Amino acid sequence: MENFVFQNPTRIIFGKGTENQVGSELKGYKKVLLHYGGGSIKKSGLYERVVKSLREAGVDFIELGGVKPNPSLDLVHEGVRMCREQGVDMILAVGGGSAIDSAKAIAMGALYDGDVWDFFVQKGDCQAALPVSTILTIAAAGSESSDSTVISRAEGQMKRGYSSKHIYPKFSILNPELTETLPAYQHACGIADMTAHLLERYFTQARQTDLSDRLIEATLKTIQVYGPRVIADLSDYEARAEIMWAGCLAHNNLFGMGRIGDWASHNIEHEISAIYDVAHGAGLAVVFPAWLKYNHKVDLQRFVQFAVRVWDVDYAFGEPERIALEGIERQKRFFKNLGLPVSLADMNVNDQHLDAMASKAVMFGPIGQFKKLNKEDVHNILKLAL
Amino acid sequence: MENFVFQNPTRIIFGKGTENQVGSELKGYKKVLLHYGGGSIKKSGLYERVVKSLREAGVDFIELGGVKPNPSLDLVHEGVRMCREQGVDMILAVGGGSAIDSAKAIAMGALYDGDVWDFFVQKGDCQAALPVSTILTIAAAGSESSDSTVISRAEGQMKRGYSSKHIYPKFSILNPELTETLPAYQHACGIADMTAHLLERYFTQARQTDLSDRLIEATLKTIQVYGPRVIADLSDYEARAEIMWAGCLAHNNLFGMGRIGDWASHNIEHEISAIYDVAHGAGLAVVFPAWLKYNHKVDLQRFVQFAVRVWDVDYAFGEPERIALEGIERQKRFFKNLGLPVSLADMNVNDQHLDAMASKAVMFGPIGQFKKLNKEDVHNILKLAL
Repeated sequence: MENFVFQNPTRIIFGKGTENQVGSELKGYKKVLLHYGGGSIKKSGLYERVVKSLREAGVDFIELGGVKPNPSLDLVHEGVRMCREQGVDMILAVGGGSAIDSAKAIAMGALYDGDVWDFFVQKGDCQAALPVSTILTIAAAGSESSDSTVISRAEGQMKRGYSSKHIYPKFSILNPELTETLPAYQHACGIADMTAHLLERYFTQARQTDLSDRLIEATLKTIQVYGPRVIADLSDYEARAEIMWAGCLAHNNLFGMGRIGDWASHNIEHEISAIYDVAHGAGLAVVFPAWLKYNHKVDLQRFVQFAVRVWDVDYAFGEPERIALEGIERQKRFFKNLGLPVSLADMNVNDQHLDAMASKAVMFGPIGQFKKLNKEDVHNILKLAL
Repeated sequence: MENFVFQNPTRIIFGKGTENQVGSELKGYKKVLLHYGGGSIKKSGLYERVVKSLREAGVDFIELGGVKPNPSLDLVHEGVRMCREQGVDMILAVGGGSAIDSAKAIAMGALYDGDVWDFFVQKGDCQAALPVSTILTIAAAGSESSDSTVISRAEGQMKRGYSSKHIYPKFSILNPELTETLPAYQHACGIADMTAHLLERYFTQARQTDLSDRLIEATLKTIQVYGPRVIADLSDYEARAEIMWAGCLAHNNLFGMGRIGDWASHNIEHEISAIYDVAHGAGLAVVFPAWLKYNHKVDLQRFVQFAVRVWDVDYAFGEPERIALEGIERQKRFFKNLGLPVSLADMNVNDQHLDAMASKAVMFGPIGQFKKLNKEDVHNILKLAL
């Protein structure tokens, strides 16, 4: 097992009706920036309940809506300006990974003497950030208890991630009731996203990681059971609760301890959704099966374990490759059965930009830890995904 | 799933050589109380390395050794006095659950205007505590990242637990190298202790707890594999690393979220080790199989799941009771194969004090949540354990 340090300070407030506590949780802050996306939280009535809770607690707040999927640097800049000008001392993100990631970037930018984009292109390191809190409206990105954020810059079609201990949310409110109004496809994208967070950690070159292997497998199994249940009946609270907790644990990094995650698939997907209007989770459902297939010989025995323990492929000692490939196939079929695309063609992406995407993916050097991928590898994976 | 709030702020520093960081971690504190047990940390050289690290970092410290298994209120009182008189602002426990629990009680007592024992007999609630940090020398109690402590008072042979968010360690150093010098029997007791922490949480009346069920099962499986490996070869670092991480996660309470733990077996065991010189883990290896057997009809299907998922008992739809009992039997055999007692007779405890122990166990009312146990129930379980 690799040496590690683990600390995750985020307080998780989980369950029915919990969004109504937000005002009392934020008492004592001088000015809160309420940050969210478009109309969905207004349509659902969540916006109203949050505002009511803040007002009842006497919490002063200003607002910045308009976060879009693949949250933009432009809006982050606007948020940074607002925080500085108005003395914001807490950002409350209400939404999914996009709103939360945008809030985290604003939180860093507000206390940084320069352009926060620097952090995303390895030109600086975050030393401090405003506190962030969240009310989660989709189980997916795990940003509600992670130290990371992903931001897109229109100029150069760049989508980049950054991690810092300063951006763990102070608290996150997870109420599975809030996800009832989401369309099935968004649930499916979220399920693919959390699955990918687990797979990125599962495929490691670190030796002797059995407990964390098993914890990841346990979470994948849970997703295997409850993902389809969520899609089949959008009113199934208990299924959505299992999935919401799974999505949070998939990315709070506990299951990454003692091992070294890969993350190449995320990088590759970022290049797709930087150019095409593709949901991150959908892109991952396309990229990951291709990545798995391309790399299955790198450590065949790990793929056999994945197939047997997660996908219940019958073990047979003489056929490791067949078993490994069957596990990959079942993972792919799982995505497909959720209604997700599993090829670039399914997303109407052709081979036009593959070369450019491969180049950009490796612009800071080879990507991935399970296997270091150069431009040609990335290109091959994208071709496998066609 | 039940609503819940989760936060565990303890920073875990895990791996080889990590005890040498302790000095730099404690820089900035004015006076540290170094708290430990008997000679083992001096014999192993750990004491010397810790002192060297503290001195090199310029950390001022005083010492209080002499913690015994089932840590005593008397020593806690002495520690409290020292902290107050000498302006201690951090307690560093070096040892196992006993040293850590003792440190936590001292930490609470130092900032409490009264006898800290009040907390343990429901006469007061902790409002603040000195910070505690730990260097763990045995994988067992999980106290290194828990909010709880158990203290024994000679007068009245009382052994009682208390939990407070104020006593989560600030950081805990977990180096599996440090457990290499332990005798096999102590490892076995530790393995029983962490197993019990998982079983206490597993057997719940809360409905719909599948993800946390599976995470507990994953950890039990890991213990199933690596527990015997530790005992078979005390020099097996990787096995000890898996077990040490398992013991920590078994009790950091993440796996208790969304459910309500039982904890009757712990209460019953406390009554045994309050009277007899019995290691806590050994007592649990005796009590838990009896508790499982006594309660298996309370929710037979949960016991079937335990047997099938954790102990690989072959599922057969018409025989739930046989399957449930086979799971319990395998758990008991697991303890026995580790070299642990599995009956009171194995520990040279006869039926002399059963009635008194049963009375004391329920002195604040029925115990347990999976099934509320009255005095007669506790007496029956103790008899089953004879």
